[in-house]
Amino acid sequence: MLLKTPYLLFLGDAADPLAAKVAQGVKDWRPEHCVGQIRLEGCNADMGLSDMTIEEAVAAGAKTLVVGVANRGGVISESWNAVFKEAVSSGMDIASGLHNLLRDIPELVELADKHNQQLIDVRVPQVEYPIASGEKRKGKRVLAVGTDCSVGKMYTALAMEKTMLERGMKASFRATGQTGILITGNGVPLDAVIADFMAGSVEYLTPDNDADHWDLIEGQGSLFHASYSGVTMALIHGGAPDVLILCHEPTRKTMRGLPSYTLPSLEELRDLAMTIAKVVNPEVRVAGLSINTAALSEDEAVAYLAKLEAEMGLPAVDPFRHGAGRLVDAL
Amino acid sequence: MLLKTPYLLFLGDAADPLAAKVAQGVKDWRPEHCVGQIRLEGCNADMGLSDMTIEEAVAAGAKTLVVGVANRGGVISESWNAVFKEAVSSGMDIASGLHNLLRDIPELVELADKHNQQLIDVRVPQVEYPIASGEKRKGKRVLAVGTDCSVGKMYTALAMEKTMLERGMKASFRATGQTGILITGNGVPLDAVIADFMAGSVEYLTPDNDADHWDLIEGQGSLFHASYSGVTMALIHGGAPDVLILCHEPTRKTMRGLPSYTLPSLEELRDLAMTIAKVVNPEVRVAGLSINTAALSEDEAVAYLAKLEAEMGLPAVDPFRHGAGRLVDAL
Repeated sequence: MLLKTPYLLFLGDAADPLAAKVAQGVKDWRPEHCVGQIRLEGCNADMGLSDMTIEEAVAAGAKTLVVGVANRGGVISESWNAVFKEAVSSGMDIASGLHNLLRDIPELVELADKHNQQLIDVRVPQVEYPIASGEKRKGKRVLAVGTDCSVGKMYTALAMEKTMLERGMKASFRATGQTGILITGNGVPLDAVIADFMAGSVEYLTPDNDADHWDLIEGQGSLFHASYSGVTMALIHGGAPDVLILCHEPTRKTMRGLPSYTLPSLEELRDLAMTIAKVVNPEVRVAGLSINTAALSEDEAVAYLAKLEAEMGLPAVDPFRHGAGRLVDAL
Repeated sequence: MLLKTPYLLFLGDAADPLAAKVAQGVKDWRPEHCVGQIRLEGCNADMGLSDMTIEEAVAAGAKTLVVGVANRGGVISESWNAVFKEAVSSGMDIASGLHNLLRDIPELVELADKHNQQLIDVRVPQVEYPIASGEKRKGKRVLAVGTDCSVGKMYTALAMEKTMLERGMKASFRATGQTGILITGNGVPLDAVIADFMAGSVEYLTPDNDADHWDLIEGQGSLFHASYSGVTMALIHGGAPDVLILCHEPTRKTMRGLPSYTLPSLEELRDLAMTIAKVVNPEVRVAGLSINTAALSEDEAVAYLAKLEAEMGLPAVDPFRHGAGRLVDAL
């Protein structure tokens, strides 16, 4: 594990709940890792955890202060830094996915060194990854691929992991982005890995395992997204999934950040992803469709999912509305 | 331009001509940039250029010492370093694509700083590249894609550029690897770029240009190569080629470095590359096949190319044996 548990979640002066979505992710998916939260004046987010001082959190066993909030204006403010300094001085590590790196704050680095605490910038690769070997590994792997970025791939994988563990199956969510790493305490920040080592880092993340163990690999980007498609490609060839789940947001008009691009159809995604995945795993199959229906009413969502299911002959579910059970059934 | 011309080619103590293949590339494709060569005791390579001392090269106008030879055992020897130190002290930059970086030799860095000379490790990105925008650019672009790595993609692009310039067309080879950068003095070391910026670096490399100008983009990896496919994907989506040239080596049994993988067919390469390239450029087309027939006799090569041409309905040529004219005709 990269991060020591349990955590104290730092919400800072989050302007609204959305600013604290990393903390929300940790609280939703790993509540057992959270001993409390720490909030500064002006904070408008609340995870429903006990508010604690650093001293109280240390007494409660907290090992890592997790920065669960986005900062404003690209600077780490003095009020944040004061908490960070108290945390390392009191025996806690700090983990952050901010663009501004903890390691770039000299007085914090000095204090952490003095107290033998770690400053963990999860945005920065911590390992020298190998070149991918393309060799077959034991165990099973699921990868969520999307028609676009930000259509629910991470949510899908986390929801499937939760359902599988509840059913007593062997399952591990494998984080490939900052939020996922902070949630699970481990992973590869794939978008920050050097090109030649991308696929190798995914092999490293999903090693040999029990024959009945499933890795739920967090997807990134989209094969159809001009800016990030290379990352998605490396995920497929490094992950060598046995099963693909196709993710989609049906009301989105254009690709995220690319206003002149429309989204591909789920059929186009299926055909391209399958062609690419078969290069490394001829047995790969698409098991289901995970649809983010947040913008639809319940009736619209149910009708849309039924229509998709009939058209594509695959279970179509919104795991947030209806749970991931039918996706797990389809494995 | 990243590198100042003209060059003095450093052949060191190359054990054989293959060890000096970078120098051979510069000499073959940019002879007008080469004022001479410098060889140490035990050198078994010869570019047919004038042997010069550093002093003579500076007098002849040389601006950059280009390291055109691979080093042995992963160290830069004392005899090499002595030449490098004399070069920067005498007013020349040094450019290198070695794994061992020039910038990691403290006394060389100190001397270069003192004399205001550059140490250019072309393996290291020199620019903070943007995220790809996916926006359409003016001008035309050709990209060579391969069934595998090392099947002649760089050679194909350089040979096409040469033919086009001889015909008075507007054409620029765009280097994406160390050797290509040393040959042309510019480019992007794509395999060393951070994942999120790969496609953006290719857009940066191939900006808006005259409507009748062609970029000949150096290919990397292969869509079917598990280790490097993400790099190839980013090249296609960042380069947004108007024309693809398919490259192949017909006698190769397994993918380079992946002994359990066989090569795809040219038809499979065509179909996958076209599907991917159409995402960013719906007008893209495959114009020809560039085949490395070095392992075939002349009769075998001619027969193989004729058969391919009939099967695929596209000009099939080995640009090394027969020139790139027919590929250029097909643009």
